[in-house]
Amino acid sequence: MTLLPSPREHLTCPTTVAAVRIQNAVLAATRETLTAKGFTELLMPIVGPVTDPGIRGSKQVDVDYYGHKYRMMTSAILYKQASLLAFDKIFCIAPNVRLEPLETASTSRHLAEFRQIDVEMAGASRADIMGVAEDVVRASVRKVVTELPGELEELGRDAGAFAELLGSPFGTMTHTAAVETLRELGHPQSADAEIDWRAEVILSGKVSGPFFVTDYPKGCRGFYDRESAEQPGVLRNFDLLAPEGFGELASGGEREFEYQKLILRMRETGENPAKYGWYLNLAREGLPASAGFGIGLERFVRYIAGLDEVWQGTPYPKIPGVVSP
Amino acid sequence: MTLLPSPREHLTCPTTVAAVRIQNAVLAATRETLTAKGFTELLMPIVGPVTDPGIRGSKQVDVDYYGHKYRMMTSAILYKQASLLAFDKIFCIAPNVRLEPLETASTSRHLAEFRQIDVEMAGASRADIMGVAEDVVRASVRKVVTELPGELEELGRDAGAFAELLGSPFGTMTHTAAVETLRELGHPQSADAEIDWRAEVILSGKVSGPFFVTDYPKGCRGFYDRESAEQPGVLRNFDLLAPEGFGELASGGEREFEYQKLILRMRETGENPAKYGWYLNLAREGLPASAGFGIGLERFVRYIAGLDEVWQGTPYPKIPGVVSP
Repeated sequence: MTLLPSPREHLTCPTTVAAVRIQNAVLAATRETLTAKGFTELLMPIVGPVTDPGIRGSKQVDVDYYGHKYRMMTSAILYKQASLLAFDKIFCIAPNVRLEPLETASTSRHLAEFRQIDVEMAGASRADIMGVAEDVVRASVRKVVTELPGELEELGRDAGAFAELLGSPFGTMTHTAAVETLRELGHPQSADAEIDWRAEVILSGKVSGPFFVTDYPKGCRGFYDRESAEQPGVLRNFDLLAPEGFGELASGGEREFEYQKLILRMRETGENPAKYGWYLNLAREGLPASAGFGIGLERFVRYIAGLDEVWQGTPYPKIPGVVSP
Repeated sequence: MTLLPSPREHLTCPTTVAAVRIQNAVLAATRETLTAKGFTELLMPIVGPVTDPGIRGSKQVDVDYYGHKYRMMTSAILYKQASLLAFDKIFCIAPNVRLEPLETASTSRHLAEFRQIDVEMAGASRADIMGVAEDVVRASVRKVVTELPGELEELGRDAGAFAELLGSPFGTMTHTAAVETLRELGHPQSADAEIDWRAEVILSGKVSGPFFVTDYPKGCRGFYDRESAEQPGVLRNFDLLAPEGFGELASGGEREFEYQKLILRMRETGENPAKYGWYLNLAREGLPASAGFGIGLERFVRYIAGLDEVWQGTPYPKIPGVVSP
């Protein structure tokens, strides 16, 4: 059982105050970077008839909406694809709720309520959108290092930790290479499976700069990560991992947008297409090809601030299973 | 029954695109204005053990949070007061869900899901915070008029409509004066009751600039609007109304923060203090005196854009009782 400080202790803690200032710098840098690239910010729904099913072991929250079963959003993915009908390049800072299993309360890195910096771009390739993610991460860290040296000092975080991030392109390895590396390190990793958070921490602990892991096998992810035409069973997607053992910062990829393929992928992942009425109606009439990503805001702040626990970086943390404001 | 266009028609409609750009300009101006005044932006929870009960006829949404009954936020008021323990001046752009009665589907001005620009300032008087609200509204309109003339033209909105807003201080009348005015206009308005949306539209239709209505009687509002020490039964609060019949833009006031008075006011308004555990624990140990307000973002955009219907200004509108994304 994770013990949180009282709300008063937490709100008045200098760590919390410094982390909120870092979060604000991240959001300001994100808005500056994306607006300069022509992205439009949208405010997405927080409840709807259906949401992202690709949430790996966590549960959705049901809501009674005028007698209809709605869900709280677990990610903005469906709205991101739809919004490309209005704007070619969009982003949002979207709140999500995922009832993570109780055992994640002690991982230092799971919150039941969190935000994503969620980005989607029509006509983009995976390489294009990885470049955007890299720019957002670098601009955010640069802003914190430049404008908030006092906060980093308060947190005991050495700005030298960001030298590689600020100075070098992010590295890339495939899922296959990641599996090999993990096995060499003595970690039993299936070639067909998601790299779980423990394995991410191991990989992340071996490097001094962020790096992408690409080409996850199809079983790992939701129906919306597009399958490679050249390599069936391999997704055109990526995760972005932080160095120093902080693990995953972001996930993204090219999107499935073709109606028939969406139906097929939904069935493959055990989803009932009938649930996805409004989204599939749009797809049948045509959604744009796109690529996008989501950065976990609290995890990103945790990494920049060098926090032991992700909950330290947010004023009202919700640790899975723990009653708190 | 209100008929919405299909999601595709709505997302590709030039009105929607122009309104989203106006919304973005409003949020940018709000952040610039408040940051320059020393306010810190926070991201507030969207579910919690308890939320704002002062929501006049609408219902809260219950959520099963690991076996505990949580609610989706109907406003950020409790978190705004608590956050003053960390920062003296705070704001948030907070999503809210209120299950408004079905009959509000045809008012042109109710959405079941909406956002507020929510501001709170420790040690502020009502006059102080009315000044902040006026500055935010004026800066937002100025940004739209200056930077988005093409969008206003697309919408058929004459920028001349904002001459008084941009050039003159906002007017003020008391609730008592508003009641008299309404009666003179033939509208039956109780001196002890809320000014409902129909009456707001009548008042709002008589003026060419925004104006504040102050000093609502105690029965109208939640326990958190502070009662006047000099005039028992009168609240130190206000609404801000737009001109041209667009009605209410914002509500705010000085806050009750003293533990014993909060308990008393909760009982007077039919609330069970036992529900408010985390909030009352903070109040018992001491919350700062403060004043604050919330601007209904979609209603503000509706006014600036000159839209017939509030749902036209948001990409994924939720009209009460209507199933939509």
